[in-house]
Amino acid sequence: MTGEVRVLPLRGIPELEEGDDLAAHIAAVAELEPGDVLVVAQKAVSKVEGRVVSLDGVEPSPKALELAGDEDPRRMEVILRESKELVRTRPPLVIAETRHGFVCASAGVDASNAKGPDTLVLLPHDPDASARALRDRLRELAGVEVGVIVSDSFGRAWRRGTTDVALGVAGVTPLLDLRGTRDTAGYELHTTEIAVADEIAGAAELVLGKVEGVPAAIVRGLDVAGDGSGQDLLMPRERDLFR
Amino acid sequence: MTGEVRVLPLRGIPELEEGDDLAAHIAAVAELEPGDVLVVAQKAVSKVEGRVVSLDGVEPSPKALELAGDEDPRRMEVILRESKELVRTRPPLVIAETRHGFVCASAGVDASNAKGPDTLVLLPHDPDASARALRDRLRELAGVEVGVIVSDSFGRAWRRGTTDVALGVAGVTPLLDLRGTRDTAGYELHTTEIAVADEIAGAAELVLGKVEGVPAAIVRGLDVAGDGSGQDLLMPRERDLFR
Repeated sequence: MTGEVRVLPLRGIPELEEGDDLAAHIAAVAELEPGDVLVVAQKAVSKVEGRVVSLDGVEPSPKALELAGDEDPRRMEVILRESKELVRTRPPLVIAETRHGFVCASAGVDASNAKGPDTLVLLPHDPDASARALRDRLRELAGVEVGVIVSDSFGRAWRRGTTDVALGVAGVTPLLDLRGTRDTAGYELHTTEIAVADEIAGAAELVLGKVEGVPAAIVRGLDVAGDGSGQDLLMPRERDLFR
Repeated sequence: MTGEVRVLPLRGIPELEEGDDLAAHIAAVAELEPGDVLVVAQKAVSKVEGRVVSLDGVEPSPKALELAGDEDPRRMEVILRESKELVRTRPPLVIAETRHGFVCASAGVDASNAKGPDTLVLLPHDPDASARALRDRLRELAGVEVGVIVSDSFGRAWRRGTTDVALGVAGVTPLLDLRGTRDTAGYELHTTEIAVADEIAGAAELVLGKVEGVPAAIVRGLDVAGDGSGQDLLMPRERDLFR
């Protein structure tokens, strides 16, 4: 892992619609190489998977009305439906555990870029499956074996701003385990695991750009091929000190 | 921010000692370009600044004995001295707010790579000042204006593994504020701020390597020059939902 790493934005991918072949759009603009890690913004994946809801006809529950504060209670209702557990609430802010186990603001529910304020984009049903499907389809279309990460922007406790993290992973080892590794002086390292998949997602975010419409990037030069799941990055409940 | 970004490890920097001219070591192995962001591992900075303590002669307090569990209570005593507030404890694990305001495991106190298990490395007294000093000295030595980030590996609530974050910053805008920015469809973005300095630190970590002895990396191709502080990345107490 000590060579140069390159982060290449993929431009020229059109605005996406439900049913679009996202891998084909990517293959059309990318020169993929074996070992590349393709990072795709969750919103792009959700759009082609049809994970988009209109607020028309959404009936807010009393709980949604209570938590929405000054914001649209229909939006809060959608957030509550995506949530398994509310971790913290301060209307209209909700930090929730999603049905997948991610802990994040608004259960990952986001405004649509393209369709206006009354349309929301939800997280994919199964981001690992989304990543695997992209990886399989890219192997088919481009004949190369790449890793795929489906990323999203998450806030953090105690630190301002979001960083991108890996929701879904295919063909990538998400955690680099240093336990038992000896350092340059021969001492066993106390640090245990590096969340490389999250660092890769964050590196890609630097070129994705929320504004310019670049939904994917290639991270090249890493040696992180392996089997793993975005679920590996979730803190097991029994080790979680912050609920 | 949509061009290619490169992450270049800086090899050939020797094991560092207190008083070493770290910028000179960097300038000797790096071909810096204007606009580069130099990311330096906190441990390297701490070593040249003499922020290294021996456990010999450290007297653990009753609190340190209580929190150390099965581990060395002298180490816990050093952690407590670096802490302003204990956020969570589960012996021997301590999540603390450091005197600088960082919330992290062990108040940032780490085992030394080079000097064995009885020597600990503390965070720099003022990581922003460390970053500024490196930036100024590199301007002097190499004649280029670069950004500098002093990074460290922090754990996260709810997610496994560490990612590198920016403790100290000089010549870099740490937060990219998207409030009020309009996206490709003309809608105002709900997402507010991206912690680009943390994403840059994480990208650099991918090539730093805890094991191979690469204490610094260059991140090239970004447009993040500006004035900012590592303190800008700390969540203000009144917005903190997780204490």
